[in-house]
Amino acid sequence: MEEEIINFIQEYQDINGTYIHTYDSPPTPVEFLRNCVHPNRPAVIKNAISHWPALKRWSDDYFREKMGESVVTVATTPNGYADAVTYDPNTDREYFVLPHEESMPFNDFLDIIQGKRNTPHAHYISLQNDSLHTEFSALKDDIDEEISWCSEALGKKPDAVNFWMGNDKSITSLHKDPYENCYAVIRGEKTFVLIPPSEYYCLHESTFPTAIYSPSMDLTPLDPPTETPWIPVDPLHPDLERFPRFKYARPIVVKVKAGEMLYLPALWFHQVLQHGDEGVIAINAWYDMDYRNTLYPSMSFVRGLVHRCL
Amino acid sequence: MEEEIINFIQEYQDINGTYIHTYDSPPTPVEFLRNCVHPNRPAVIKNAISHWPALKRWSDDYFREKMGESVVTVATTPNGYADAVTYDPNTDREYFVLPHEESMPFNDFLDIIQGKRNTPHAHYISLQNDSLHTEFSALKDDIDEEISWCSEALGKKPDAVNFWMGNDKSITSLHKDPYENCYAVIRGEKTFVLIPPSEYYCLHESTFPTAIYSPSMDLTPLDPPTETPWIPVDPLHPDLERFPRFKYARPIVVKVKAGEMLYLPALWFHQVLQHGDEGVIAINAWYDMDYRNTLYPSMSFVRGLVHRCL
Repeated sequence: MEEEIINFIQEYQDINGTYIHTYDSPPTPVEFLRNCVHPNRPAVIKNAISHWPALKRWSDDYFREKMGESVVTVATTPNGYADAVTYDPNTDREYFVLPHEESMPFNDFLDIIQGKRNTPHAHYISLQNDSLHTEFSALKDDIDEEISWCSEALGKKPDAVNFWMGNDKSITSLHKDPYENCYAVIRGEKTFVLIPPSEYYCLHESTFPTAIYSPSMDLTPLDPPTETPWIPVDPLHPDLERFPRFKYARPIVVKVKAGEMLYLPALWFHQVLQHGDEGVIAINAWYDMDYRNTLYPSMSFVRGLVHRCL
Repeated sequence: MEEEIINFIQEYQDINGTYIHTYDSPPTPVEFLRNCVHPNRPAVIKNAISHWPALKRWSDDYFREKMGESVVTVATTPNGYADAVTYDPNTDREYFVLPHEESMPFNDFLDIIQGKRNTPHAHYISLQNDSLHTEFSALKDDIDEEISWCSEALGKKPDAVNFWMGNDKSITSLHKDPYENCYAVIRGEKTFVLIPPSEYYCLHESTFPTAIYSPSMDLTPLDPPTETPWIPVDPLHPDLERFPRFKYARPIVVKVKAGEMLYLPALWFHQVLQHGDEGVIAINAWYDMDYRNTLYPSMSFVRGLVHRCL
């Protein structure tokens, strides 16, 4: 049966290769549905957000003025890996580790990012759950309320719009979301490592005890103990001895620059890295995926086979 | 592993049920992509062909005048089943049986359909391969060249437009096509029995020796012998002792009346019956399916598992 799974992965690869289309301007709703959403293929879209005031306005001075005193939630880790599988030398075990969530005035976060406050840790504004309209609502008029051609294509409004700000230290480990994702970089650059849903088998997902970083960055197992299924493999530096199935994966590495948008299709696995001296800023809009076609049950099926039959 | 396949089938059913949407007028290209093509769900579309001259013009008199002398290809079988698994009492074996293809003036075919010429056999104009533009090109101005909203949605022209004419005797056995299919009934009524791609396991597809009807309707094995994979189960009268997996299938029965169109999504299994005293006429447009998303490799995968691992 393993051979059949590998055939499936390779048939998808044979049809699609690792090509990612770049649009020089936003696609029409029909083009977006036809060539991105329906094929479930990523794309880079240039000039989709050129008209957003955020691109000009969002300086650190502007942030300090607009909401410097506002308290924001910051994910803090010793190594930049929040929501990631992490080896704990003290217990000689691997945990799925949640970040320490700190509340601080936005000014303090900016001090950290600007290097005015020394910290050995990684700090990342990555709250999600529509953070633009909760903690960052003072900034909401600086961007469009929705991605118009995406909303028109999908026939719905975004489920959540999130504000992200961090630096090179922070890395989002490989995972997937059940959302169509329009991800716009406002400042700096992000690198996305993308892996199609069909390559689930390659990723050695397994279940880890869950821990959380304490304020002093000690790794503390949750009480009561909780298990979390997560992907342990680093797609850019895979340990092929531990994760031999990863040899069948064909990761796609996409760099998204300030002013560009990535369409990240539902259920695609993605790792995200960021680059930039000043703090990398991004906005993403999540749209609920359509569960009606065969993609979702197919992927549950493959997952079930991998875990119960191999 | 069988349990996983059944879970997959049932997860798809839990999400989708057996609902088929009926549009009172053609969807826009965006609606069609969003709610039909992308979810890979059938729909009935009313008033999509009301403006086709064919609806008024296509009488038998008109056919006789326009192309009565033209030679057309007619699929002839003793029982109405062309391209179907058929039991041969002489050899006590089942064959996949091709029809006898007769060439005759269209007038002769009309005589048969009108009962002016007695025949115990079933005769069906079902040539496919763009028959409207080959044998029936005299009629092509009576319908639109393409289904405009479908062509605009898919960004392509139809790959083939076919003319179908037959009567209650002819039944198209369960099969699938790698095409998005817009199927318009011009006269009479057609019943489609639809089964989603996810239910492949239920259909007991297997391989049969191929035979063809001779002009005298004898069943003649092909020489050299040829094997054809085909579905032996009749979805309206399933023999559950022989085909126990069919109990997991949830066939959807859709009646399409004159003037209505069925959107039959790529890779859906369909059986087609027809009803009408005067000869049932239909036109269908096939559009190449998009192979890029996970549907096609997923279905190959399920097929491989069913045949090599069960």
